Amino acid sequence: MADARSKKLFEAVPNFSEGRDPGKIGRIAASVKRTPGVTVLNLHSDPDHNRSVLTFVGEAEPLLTASVALARACVEEIDLTAQRGVHPRMGSLDVLPFVPLGPPLSEANLQDAARLASEVGEEIGFLGVPVYLYGAAASIPHRENLADVRRGGYEGLSARAEDPAWRPDYGPEVMPARSGAVAVGARPFLVAFNAYLDTEDVQTAREIAREVRERDGGLPQVKALGLEVGGRAQVSMNLTDLGRTSIPAALEAVRRAAERRGARVEETELVGLMPLGAVLEAARYCLGLPELGTEHVVEAALWQNLREAPEL
Amino acid sequence: MADARSKKLFEAVPNFSEGRDPGKIGRIAASVKRTPGVTVLNLHSDPDHNRSVLTFVGEAEPLLTASVALARACVEEIDLTAQRGVHPRMGSLDVLPFVPLGPPLSEANLQDAARLASEVGEEIGFLGVPVYLYGAAASIPHRENLADVRRGGYEGLSARAEDPAWRPDYGPEVMPARSGAVAVGARPFLVAFNAYLDTEDVQTAREIAREVRERDGGLPQVKALGLEVGGRAQVSMNLTDLGRTSIPAALEAVRRAAERRGARVEETELVGLMPLGAVLEAARYCLGLPELGTEHVVEAALWQNLREAPEL
Repeated sequence: MADARSKKLFEAVPNFSEGRDPGKIGRIAASVKRTPGVTVLNLHSDPDHNRSVLTFVGEAEPLLTASVALARACVEEIDLTAQRGVHPRMGSLDVLPFVPLGPPLSEANLQDAARLASEVGEEIGFLGVPVYLYGAAASIPHRENLADVRRGGYEGLSARAEDPAWRPDYGPEVMPARSGAVAVGARPFLVAFNAYLDTEDVQTAREIAREVRERDGGLPQVKALGLEVGGRAQVSMNLTDLGRTSIPAALEAVRRAAERRGARVEETELVGLMPLGAVLEAARYCLGLPELGTEHVVEAALWQNLREAPEL
Repeated sequence: MADARSKKLFEAVPNFSEGRDPGKIGRIAASVKRTPGVTVLNLHSDPDHNRSVLTFVGEAEPLLTASVALARACVEEIDLTAQRGVHPRMGSLDVLPFVPLGPPLSEANLQDAARLASEVGEEIGFLGVPVYLYGAAASIPHRENLADVRRGGYEGLSARAEDPAWRPDYGPEVMPARSGAVAVGARPFLVAFNAYLDTEDVQTAREIAREVRERDGGLPQVKALGLEVGGRAQVSMNLTDLGRTSIPAALEAVRRAAERRGARVEETELVGLMPLGAVLEAARYCLGLPELGTEHVVEAALWQNLREAPEL
């Protein structure tokens, strides 16, 4: 292992197009689990969407090995021509984002993640799967946004295949029907955060979503939708760069927008995980402690120390 | 090492009566640093108080070894009859609290810390130093409060030595002039948190302190003083059990009490460290996420996983 101080860790969050067959899902996940140096944190399968999300963490080298093994397993186990589900998909291994894990855990940044995504993309290309780099790894500006890359799913990408602007970064230019293509990218940690309103009126949620999301002139790096969930109006948000818009800032904007419409945020919800930095940001905001950092958290200081101890 | 799942970690925060002589301080700290299995997180020396605070972490067995080595070094290096400083002290190794580190880092609880304090106390008693157990380790209710044990410092304790209610738990009943006695205890993590007001009037800070502290009918496990610091009125707080009164709850009470007096909290300050649980509590409060736990924090989930991995 390199000097512990310069250790770089990443999270990989692949989405693959199988959420029903436990045998297939198990074999696909096993391809990652058996790679030394990789820690699997979570596997979430959704039968309706017929789709699974695997979360695993490691340094660049083991992640590269695990990602190629994962892509190979997906190609072997999933036949896209037979796959049906609610979610639009472009490939058997559909999307593979890499997220840098910053201090205190590691020194990885977004550029490191982009480099890793490109290396992984090249290897997956050798397997005969077309690879589109996106996010911070994008080779062309119009491919930065994942939604633009996957527009229309497999069918949409196939139709654009003749267009030089949509040639894959790696792999064959003709789209294989069985595997489809894969989007491999780098992005900051994404937080999925929902606010339930004290109203059933989904229209109110839609208006609030429009007011807070970046697309319509709202907060930077905020995506938002108004939904009806379990009989309640919900503002569903993706915060795609917490350094630009933090969770408390987004929540505050939703609260104010709701108040102006005579509604109130009744409950909030975190989907999945958030990084320690996001928790600290909320505490900084709430306690008025702008300087609060990981060095003030006992556990983080201890982990940092253990990581830096030469005998470990 | 025992099963990683049942690993119990503690923080020791000894205060010793030397804050000026770098040679002595270095040799005392070295007695802890050279103990295998112990991680030193911090050493803070204060020349005015002529006092140092060392923070180190480990499992019970290494902490026991390190604590006895520390007590021996303090006895050797510090002569209490020659020691002068602002801070009232009762011994060369003055106070030695053990704090359990809870999930996700370990499974230690306050009872475990009390047991460790008692074992450490017995060993230090064998060195010829009178030991008073306090906090959760106290053998008699009237010794639970550290302030009661150390009242009057060395001189006060010596005067009470004849009183059966003030016999030491371990060690000689006659107080040695050179080493004095030591208070060894167990307590939950203590957070030192200060709020600066937008006024110079220290009287306002004193009134607010009286209103929020437990002693005068305020919040449980909150100690508070009104001070003047750098020309500003400050409410200085110790939160001695965050499970009873959290940081945001204490801050909210100070804010309300200040408002009623036409003042405002202008700035806040954390002295030292806080546990991950306290940061999470602030985030729960601020984001309206009562369920938020360490399992939702990427780094903590990863550390938990690494800790539980059999190969580590």
